[in-house]
This record gives sequence, structure tokens and C-alpha cells, in this order.
Amino acid sequence: MQYVQGLSCTNCGKSYSPEPDRYLCSECGDRGLLEVEYNYDLIRRNWGRKKLADNPEPSHWRYLPLLPVNPETIRPLLRVGGTPLYQNRVLGTELGLTEVWIKDDGLNPTGSLKDRASSLAVVKAREAGREIVACSSTGNAASSLAGNAAANGLQAVIFVPKRAPSGKVAQLMIFGALVISVQGSYSEAYDLSASSIKRWNWYNRNAAINPYLMEGKKTAVLELAEQLDWKLPDWIVLTVGDGCTIAGAGKALRDLQELGFIENKPRLLGVQAAGCAPITRAWEQSEPLQVCAEESLADSIAVGNPRNWRKAIRAIKETDGVLVNVPDEEILEMMRLLGRKSGIFGEPAGVAGLAGIRRAVREGLIGKSQKVAVIITGNGLKDIDSARKAAGEPYKLPPDLARMEEVVSKEGLKEQ
Amino acid sequence: MQYVQGLSCTNCGKSYSPEPDRYLCSECGDRGLLEVEYNYDLIRRNWGRKKLADNPEPSHWRYLPLLPVNPETIRPLLRVGGTPLYQNRVLGTELGLTEVWIKDDGLNPTGSLKDRASSLAVVKAREAGREIVACSSTGNAASSLAGNAAANGLQAVIFVPKRAPSGKVAQLMIFGALVISVQGSYSEAYDLSASSIKRWNWYNRNAAINPYLMEGKKTAVLELAEQLDWKLPDWIVLTVGDGCTIAGAGKALRDLQELGFIENKPRLLGVQAAGCAPITRAWEQSEPLQVCAEESLADSIAVGNPRNWRKAIRAIKETDGVLVNVPDEEILEMMRLLGRKSGIFGEPAGVAGLAGIRRAVREGLIGKSQKVAVIITGNGLKDIDSARKAAGEPYKLPPDLARMEEVVSKEGLKEQ
Repeated sequence: MQYVQGLSCTNCGKSYSPEPDRYLCSECGDRGLLEVEYNYDLIRRNWGRKKLADNPEPSHWRYLPLLPVNPETIRPLLRVGGTPLYQNRVLGTELGLTEVWIKDDGLNPTGSLKDRASSLAVVKAREAGREIVACSSTGNAASSLAGNAAANGLQAVIFVPKRAPSGKVAQLMIFGALVISVQGSYSEAYDLSASSIKRWNWYNRNAAINPYLMEGKKTAVLELAEQLDWKLPDWIVLTVGDGCTIAGAGKALRDLQELGFIENKPRLLGVQAAGCAPITRAWEQSEPLQVCAEESLADSIAVGNPRNWRKAIRAIKETDGVLVNVPDEEILEMMRLLGRKSGIFGEPAGVAGLAGIRRAVREGLIGKSQKVAVIITGNGLKDIDSARKAAGEPYKLPPDLARMEEVVSKEGLKEQ
Repeated sequence: MQYVQGLSCTNCGKSYSPEPDRYLCSECGDRGLLEVEYNYDLIRRNWGRKKLADNPEPSHWRYLPLLPVNPETIRPLLRVGGTPLYQNRVLGTELGLTEVWIKDDGLNPTGSLKDRASSLAVVKAREAGREIVACSSTGNAASSLAGNAAANGLQAVIFVPKRAPSGKVAQLMIFGALVISVQGSYSEAYDLSASSIKRWNWYNRNAAINPYLMEGKKTAVLELAEQLDWKLPDWIVLTVGDGCTIAGAGKALRDLQELGFIENKPRLLGVQAAGCAPITRAWEQSEPLQVCAEESLADSIAVGNPRNWRKAIRAIKETDGVLVNVPDEEILEMMRLLGRKSGIFGEPAGVAGLAGIRRAVREGLIGKSQKVAVIITGNGLKDIDSARKAAGEPYKLPPDLARMEEVVSKEGLKEQ
């Protein structure tokens, strides 16, 4: 925490000391999301790219000077971050580009980028002296909180909307969380979590208001930059639900520029599901957000009432970025394309960014010679129903070679 | 391949040159499984622990001198290996031990240890000039082959038994494999794969006969040794289905001893599901294997007719090891325990090793002060049905704080 100057209100600018359970500006209320401010001068004096390169820590805790935690606080025993980055030429060609990088954040411990935020949350909960930490989530924030709480000796209480895929629910039950399936929308699950957290004074992991979570999410981009030897591509692509993840990406870019770690500053491409795109609408119309229905199979980004929309739009604007929407059919198509061309299995919200890239290339937003990196935010194993929709069913055959002859002939497989 | 001396028959000792599609001893047939022999003197001269430590390669290809591939062959663009290792004191206490290490191989690219073998298979397929590679599998070998084939530009053809969990099947369909769901047992799926491979001359990824796969699997133990700074624990614990994985562990220990990388040699504890334990029986009775029924929810290790049973028993005997069986209830209990105490979600076959440890401690086979490492071989997200059996259902509530009061009271959660 030696590098944290304080928290500042993104609405009125008022400063606060960085208590672990300080969530909102006391004057602006729900509009007054807070943001962590660092003393970059001090960081520059004590830390740099060389020191980082010499650090053997494989997880995202290698960026500790840029994280708002006390280095002495007990951290969850999980390797969060350190996910692989691949350059895939075949996939690049399919998208109409020459250089595409894919970061598979589905290989985080509980299978999504959200581990980066939840690992921060359970550390801050300990700093706040709480033994119970709670959130509402469409799934990934939930399972990551449950896993990280288990790995840090805390109890998690989790509110999921009715539509959360069963795989995600089973996962967090295995982690020992108390799970409340709220028979309603994501917004209703959120509201019940908020009132419960207030009633019992649990630690609040809702990315909607907790200022520390975005700091965890930003490590995906810090890592990307380090993996690319500090030469970031022209575009970084992320899917957008609540808005916190892309806001974290924006924060990472600010950090990296302030510290002089990068010279170029990529543009952010945010991708929403066409069936639930309130942030794109607010950005396009330059109007306040209008809550909308949640109609997409990309459940992790189908957030009708996103609380971090202002931070998200700020990150888009700061980087001269763009938001685009993609329909579910294109998301399913990209699940197949990514799987076939790379061996990576992403969940719908995780691969929607690829569909967004293709749209942006077709619309001329991304130039064909520009370099693009996309972060696959969640593992496809979390949502098998969507995978089935995307991939279809296998051939069902009796154990009989004659029947196999028919299949081989139909599929046109060559004798080798 | 400069370090590979050849292949030798584990039955008659006859030597063969290491063609990529050499599978069995031409004299011993099915009994004549082959094994890769290395020129350890030459490896010792050119490679060592220091050189390895200086290698930045994060995947299992860092052990290239101990892998039977041509360094020039195209490799799949996936980070196989490099999975995290945790020391977990809480879990150790629960198992009655003071030092327990857990290696989460469910964080491999397609979610299981089998990626280590399949990545070798697709490289050998390329060396053999084939564009199609095939196998039969209960699931993990299949999805890992499908993913690694996709990442290496090859077509996979996969035969799964009827009972393969739908999540595993959907995953490999996403990877673009041609999938044949054989309406029968694992043995029948195996036989149809064998006859099809012969008929169309596809590359054969069946661990039952392909000698190169075990070499990939052994990297889990090479990695474990390196992560523990070459001080291996008293026991290494692995679940046993076909027998190839534990045979690979035995091979790794031989490699490490031959090269002088380790001084102590751990004992192997092999764990089979009580409902399908033919290798334990053959080992206990010192008799040839008897094919048995496949009655366990740990589908990845429920192999009634394991083809690598001799190699497995050899590895157990060479290390003065032990085989134990565990019932399904204990496997489900360990899914919960691992999840709650570590934030790791393992599939049934992946966590059965923990149940085996507890049995072995209770029976006095493992001493309470002995150090133990267990490899979690597969990700729990692959088998959600079993997770549901283990974890139960969440509370279903309307969005109403009064109803939440009842739950909090019933669960005895404290106000903070």
C-alpha cells in the first residue's frame, strides 16, 4: 500500500483515504464510484521493467507495486494470472488481419479473468477484518470469489440470477460457498446482495462499487504488455458487460504510460452482445445509460443495468476506442472458429471479442495491417449448453466398421 | 531425437529404430509394448539442471532433451504443462499429514494432464507425414487430442464410449474433431478405433500402444521435480485407469535418477476406483490382468481392459509403490474437500488420489510425517453432473431480504 495515495471520486474528484471497505463517495452516492490513485513518482523510483523481469513470481502478484494491497496480508493460495499468450496466424487470416494475439484467460484457476479481481477482493476482506465476503454475479465473478475465498480461508456468500448456467453454480458449490439462486434477473440478484451485505456487514465484492476489483482486472493488460515486451498492438479487444473489465484495461494503460513502460497506447475495442448493449448505446448517443433487457446466450456480459458504464466509456474515450455489438449467431460461430483454429475453448462471452474484431475490420474501424490482441475472458467448459448449440452432436454408431465406412466416405476423409 | 537410442520391447527386449509410427514389437504383438530408450550419457554431457533453469520456455517443451521428438517438427501452439504447484497445510491436516503438495494439471490448455501426451502425438503424426490422427478415449485423451490437433493444423477422429460426459464431447466437437460416439463400452470404442486406424492408416494416438505418449505424460513429474528444486517428496500419488500415466511417472523417475537430477526416489501410490480396479487386483494377486466391469463415476479411470497394466505395475514395483482402491462416495467427498480447502475444482478421476492418500495414511502405508505430492489430473468443469452429486443444489429464493434472514439464521452466519 506504500504506493497508494488514496481513492478519488470519479464524479466530484473528492479524495478519500484507502480503507479496505471504502466503496463509494459519501457525497455522490451511487454515482460516486471511487478509483485508486497511485504515487507514480515513488513507484518509478523503486521499481521498473528490469526489476520486474528478475521477479520469478509467476502470478499477477508480480505487479504488486501497482496493486492496492498490503504486501503482508495473507493472499489466496492460487496462481492467478500468468495465462498464456499466442500469436495465431491462421485465425488472423480468418479475421482479415495479419497479426492477431490471443490471451487465454480461461486458464485462470477457476476458469476466468474474474480471478484477477476476486483475488484482490479476498485480500481486501482480510484487511477489513471480515470473514465473510459476498457478491452477486452471472457466474464467473461468483465462482472466482468462491474459489479465492476457499483458498484464503474465508466464507463466500453468493447471489446468482436464475439463468446462471448450472456448470458455474456447481463449481461454486464445490468451493463451499453459500449460494442463493435469486429467482429473478441479474439486477434483482444484485439488489438482494446489496441489501444483505448492508444488513450483515459482509465484505462487498460487487465490482459495481468496490474500487479495488478493477485494479485486479487491469493485470490482464499489464501481463499482456510484459509478454509482448512492452510493445502493445494497435488494438486491445475485450467484451463488455458491467464495464469493469474494460475500465481496468484503461487503468492498466494509464499505469503503463505514467511509468514509462510503454510508448504507444493501444485503442480499446469494447464488444457487447447485440441482445444487451446498453453501454454501446450510451456511448453512441452520448446519453446517460438506459437499463435494458438481458437477451444473449453470452451470459457473462448480458448485464442490463451495468454499474461501471461511466468508467467503461471513459476508458473507451481516453484511448480513442470504439464499442461494437455482435449477435449471438456470430458468437457461436466464433466459438467454433477459435476452437478449430487454435485449440482454445472459450465461453460465449469469452469469444465475443473475436466477432467484434471481424465486424470492426469489415466496417473499416480496424485496418487490415493493424495488430490486434484479444483476451478470451472465460473457459468454454463453464457453459456446455452453448457449446452444444455451437458444435452440434457427434455421430452415434454401433461398434461396426461397415458403419464407419459410411461416415468416412460422407466426411471425405482421406486414406493416409 | 539426437538423444533417442531406439525403442525396446518391454516383453522380449528386442530393439527397434524409432519411427514415428512404430507402435508394437513385431514379434510379441499386443504384449510387446515398446518403450523409448535415451542415451543418458549424451544428455548428461549437453544438458543439466543449470541449463534448464536458464530456459525461459514455460511449457513442457522445456524438457525437450528428454522428449522423443525432432526439435524442428511443428508443435501445437498451446502452452501444455507449466501447471501450478501448491503446498496446502489445511488440506494436509485433513488428510492426516504435515506436508501435502497439490499440482493442478486441470489447468492445462484443454483441462487435463492428457494434453501432455496428445501434444506429443500430434508432433509424431506430423513426423509420420499424416494429416489425420485418431484415438478412443473416455474423454480427456479425446479432448486433448482434438485441441492439440486443432492447434497443430491436423484433423482428429475420435471414438468415445456412450457414457462419456457431455461436457467432454461438446469440447471436442468445438475443436473440430470428427466424433464417433460408439454405442457400447470403452473396450468396444477402443476396438472400433483400432480397426478404423488400421483401415485408413491414420496416426494412432491410443496410449494403449503408442510408445511416445507415456513420454509426454512423464513431464508432469519432471515438472514437479523442478518446481520442488529437485527434492521430491516421499510419495507421488496418481490415479490409475489405463496405466499409462503412472507408467509415465515411473519413467520420469528413472530419467531423473539416470541424469543425477534427484537423489531420493519417491514411492508411487496408484489409486483406482473401487468399481473398476483390475490393475490393483493383478498387482495384489501377482496374476495376469482380468478384464472387469466399469462401474465408477470417475469415468477417466474406469477402464475395464487397461492395455498398459504391465507398465503400470512395473512402475509401482520399481518404486516400492502401492496400489489402493477408493469407492465413489470418497471420491465425491474429496471433490468437496479439495474445493473447500484449496479453491481447486477437480474432476472425480482427478481427485481420487486424495481419497487414496487418506486410505493409505489410515492403513499405515503412508507415515504421518511423510511428504506427499498428488497430481490433480483433470478439471472438474469437465464433469458437472458429478459436481452436482457432490455439492448439492443452491438455495432458491425470491428477491426478498426477509427470506434471506431465514437462510442466514439457519446457516449460522455471523454479522461482521
